Amino acid sequence: MNHTIDTILNHRSIRKFTEDKLTDEQIHILIKAAQQASTSSNVMAYTIIGVTDPVLKKELRKISGQPYVEHNGHLFVFCGDLHRITQLSTPEERIEMEETIESTEQFIVTIIDAALSAQNLAIAAESIGLGICYLGSLRNDIYHVSELLGLPDYVVPLFGMAVGTPAQQPELKPRLPFEVVYHENKYLADEIQQPAISSYDAELLEYYQTRSSNTKVDTWSEQMIRKYRNPIRMDVSSFVKEQKLNKR
Amino acid sequence: MNHTIDTILNHRSIRKFTEDKLTDEQIHILIKAAQQASTSSNVMAYTIIGVTDPVLKKELRKISGQPYVEHNGHLFVFCGDLHRITQLSTPEERIEMEETIESTEQFIVTIIDAALSAQNLAIAAESIGLGICYLGSLRNDIYHVSELLGLPDYVVPLFGMAVGTPAQQPELKPRLPFEVVYHENKYLADEIQQPAISSYDAELLEYYQTRSSNTKVDTWSEQMIRKYRNPIRMDVSSFVKEQKLNKR
Repeated sequence: MNHTIDTILNHRSIRKFTEDKLTDEQIHILIKAAQQASTSSNVMAYTIIGVTDPVLKKELRKISGQPYVEHNGHLFVFCGDLHRITQLSTPEERIEMEETIESTEQFIVTIIDAALSAQNLAIAAESIGLGICYLGSLRNDIYHVSELLGLPDYVVPLFGMAVGTPAQQPELKPRLPFEVVYHENKYLADEIQQPAISSYDAELLEYYQTRSSNTKVDTWSEQMIRKYRNPIRMDVSSFVKEQKLNKR
Repeated sequence: MNHTIDTILNHRSIRKFTEDKLTDEQIHILIKAAQQASTSSNVMAYTIIGVTDPVLKKELRKISGQPYVEHNGHLFVFCGDLHRITQLSTPEERIEMEETIESTEQFIVTIIDAALSAQNLAIAAESIGLGICYLGSLRNDIYHVSELLGLPDYVVPLFGMAVGTPAQQPELKPRLPFEVVYHENKYLADEIQQPAISSYDAELLEYYQTRSSNTKVDTWSEQMIRKYRNPIRMDVSSFVKEQKLNKR
């Protein structure tokens, strides 16, 4: 269609990188791309922390359990940030701003702002031949990540992103059918969604059985049920509240 | 740099569109682009609702207060969705999945998943000459939006996006300086951030005074303090909990 849409449709997560480091120029252009994303009322409610310290990278790898958190071209950590907006306020103004900052509404704003900027960074990176992997796994121990990065109140680490030169080329994994994800005017009734979900289950089973490595017998529905029967990261809730976000 | 990065860096929100409607082919390619974004553990925790019914569009415009919610090439509403994953589960399994689904962790997952897919859609649209505007304003009455779209438990409307042929070409608004948004290894101390924020305040003041329309005297810090002193959308919190998300 065009270079941009080709880049987007060609996305696959990369979990193995060469040792080539991103250049300062590359980091600058990627951050500039991130910053140009839409932001709610110009709040820009996020901070991106680039992690270059090898000791820190090793610690974050331990938290995530993923070797590519340590071995990559560059590691970014995306934080929701409502601390910055208070910096040039007076102590009185700060007190008046608290109720809004601590709301679930503003917590949603920080997550959306951070995610939009991250996806701009991801696409920009992929457009110049780099690979990326999102790292929700940093939330495995969100208290520790926050401590390692020295985050103040009103700031939470949301996810990381490993970027670098790909040392693998995984297959494209099939997505849910169009008609399951895209509804018109009203949320689609379960009876209408279910046959399409079943057909996706069959498609994913076929994909897992025939892909070039790590073949298995599994469906989407079974994966989801298995995953959600085991609560994980239940401490994220208390952590976020201790950072004074999502409190009311 | 390349077509993709040029597209990203050229982003500005479009708030006035021609009456040209998106074609079905365009909608399909945009949704395909949205779906190719990264997703946490393949959950794909979002649903996109395309709004074409004129009566419904008028209602959503009333909620947002923005005419371009009604007048655009196409209107998308992005919803966080943890309902779909329960569809092929048994009632017993569903009960076992509840604790996880209702967690703040999974609420974060839905917002990130929805936002990443939305930003893919936005960039794909801009790459073919369309303009876009995110609509956080649908959260002005999130209860009503949810009712209009018929959302079940575990589904919340997060934001809309108006897409269409631009009928305006706004200036690019300056963003915060690189060194304020991008930190290395540790969150930057306030004393270091503040001079750069002050310089952005001066830059934005200059921008507002010299732009081609709607000139005003304002800085970023003043805007933020003003905005956050007035709590808005405080009912989002209770709404989300009533949809059985972000509860624990």
